[in-house]
Amino acid sequence: MGEHFADRLVAAVKARGTWACVGIDPVYAQLPEALRVEYPQERAVDGLRAFCRAVLEAVSPLVAVVKLNIAFFEPYRGAGVELYFEMVAYARSLGLIVIGDVKRGDIGHTSMAYARAQLADSDAGPGPDAVTLSGYFGIDGIEPFLTVCREQDKGIFVLVHTSNASAGEVQHAALADGTNVAEQMARLVAEWGRMEGMRGKCGLSAVGAVVAPGELSRARVLRGLLPDAVLLVPGFGAQGRSREQVAACFRADGGGALVNSSRGVINAYADANYAPKSPEAWTESVRQACRDLVTAVGNIQSPA
Amino acid sequence: MGEHFADRLVAAVKARGTWACVGIDPVYAQLPEALRVEYPQERAVDGLRAFCRAVLEAVSPLVAVVKLNIAFFEPYRGAGVELYFEMVAYARSLGLIVIGDVKRGDIGHTSMAYARAQLADSDAGPGPDAVTLSGYFGIDGIEPFLTVCREQDKGIFVLVHTSNASAGEVQHAALADGTNVAEQMARLVAEWGRMEGMRGKCGLSAVGAVVAPGELSRARVLRGLLPDAVLLVPGFGAQGRSREQVAACFRADGGGALVNSSRGVINAYADANYAPKSPEAWTESVRQACRDLVTAVGNIQSPA
Repeated sequence: MGEHFADRLVAAVKARGTWACVGIDPVYAQLPEALRVEYPQERAVDGLRAFCRAVLEAVSPLVAVVKLNIAFFEPYRGAGVELYFEMVAYARSLGLIVIGDVKRGDIGHTSMAYARAQLADSDAGPGPDAVTLSGYFGIDGIEPFLTVCREQDKGIFVLVHTSNASAGEVQHAALADGTNVAEQMARLVAEWGRMEGMRGKCGLSAVGAVVAPGELSRARVLRGLLPDAVLLVPGFGAQGRSREQVAACFRADGGGALVNSSRGVINAYADANYAPKSPEAWTESVRQACRDLVTAVGNIQSPA
Repeated sequence: MGEHFADRLVAAVKARGTWACVGIDPVYAQLPEALRVEYPQERAVDGLRAFCRAVLEAVSPLVAVVKLNIAFFEPYRGAGVELYFEMVAYARSLGLIVIGDVKRGDIGHTSMAYARAQLADSDAGPGPDAVTLSGYFGIDGIEPFLTVCREQDKGIFVLVHTSNASAGEVQHAALADGTNVAEQMARLVAEWGRMEGMRGKCGLSAVGAVVAPGELSRARVLRGLLPDAVLLVPGFGAQGRSREQVAACFRADGGGALVNSSRGVINAYADANYAPKSPEAWTESVRQACRDLVTAVGNIQSPA
């Protein structure tokens, strides 16, 4: 047995001194011009490879965790999925903790197939350290992933409250007990997080939650329902969560919340605030935006 | 513009005379022995290809619709995903309506990436006619798929009530208005199904729902909330839905519900009732189980 996911995560976060997470959502049309010239459309996958490698190298000295979104690799079918796993392995080789943003969810033997395919290290090669999952099926959809977590010291993040405008259509539906659907999901995630082998020595669980409510009070309620969970908080930057909303996702000890920014970091060269000095210097824009993310998250963790 | 998904579906069902659907969940260890001898483990993907092709050829004269479950291809990473899309294209070339069972769900530009990757016909090749989706995000997660439905006459099936034991942990949570989460999801699916361009000439919508409640009364309620939706009803056979439960998913006109059986058909050679006369004759077992599925579904549609 290696080290428990939550303990590995906390050690990596401590080493870098930040709970910031960089999300890798690569889109060919948004690559730096220098890369699009070097890799024309018909070599898009090679262009994405060069981009992802350079971004991972730029951010790996600065953050402990990256999130790779498989949706942006799947349009390239087999070649895209191979590239996704190649980048998962490359990020891990750089010492990063890797979250595979795959949002899978199914039941029974299908769920086990997904767990083996998307989370496990297998004959096919290494998988990510953790994946995002849908919890709509209840424990049946989660259990196969817990098995892989136990066997290989991995983690999961279950969707509880998403960051989009229409999240409330389902997630805010009022329950008879006075809570709502997101809170019910949070209660389940907390329960799954207390199952055998899930809690690390650090006290945090390998079962985390995706929590990005648009209102501060909802963030507080969900944090309260998930005392031992690591919250993966998307939407810092492009999706515009406020400092207070994000702060409410941390535990009282200032830890336990991974604050993710994707486009705000990886596409920083397109932002006037981070305009590169030359087309080839685009990684410096990414690096500076990542530094600023780390500073911003640090200010949230320990407000002045 | 081609023909609307719902109209194509109804025409195909009418041509074959059955709402039965065969689910393709290929697992190497469960392939017929003859195939495992011809394709040893290190050529597993080739073995799955031979299996899927033979199954598709066996069932295509008997049913109108097949459901290909991508979870069983993803463990083989790039090669598996390539095979999945190859089989999608092959099934379509045989005249079958193809549902890609992918259960994706995300928001914004991620959802659009999934819609282009998993549903659309693209430069990469044809996609399936419809896909299964999670609706937990609300309309934001669905809208990009509706765009592809409008552009390319495709369809979606949103998870409303799943067939597993723990489905109720989320889906039965009691709402303040006296309904439950599955019913709220059904109301949303009905609403999305009435959006521009979604309804076909036949009166059915391109926005369907996955509905497999374990209790008859729940099936009736959900059917009532989804008058114009095609219901995709898994769990006939291996997961043991009763005749009455399945019957309640049909509309009063005897249509509008695709009744899926996966392992009960594709692995029929391992069932003593369908034991093949020789190891090579395993496709005859599949064919006979498929005929029996069609008969069983026919009896449900029009009870004696």
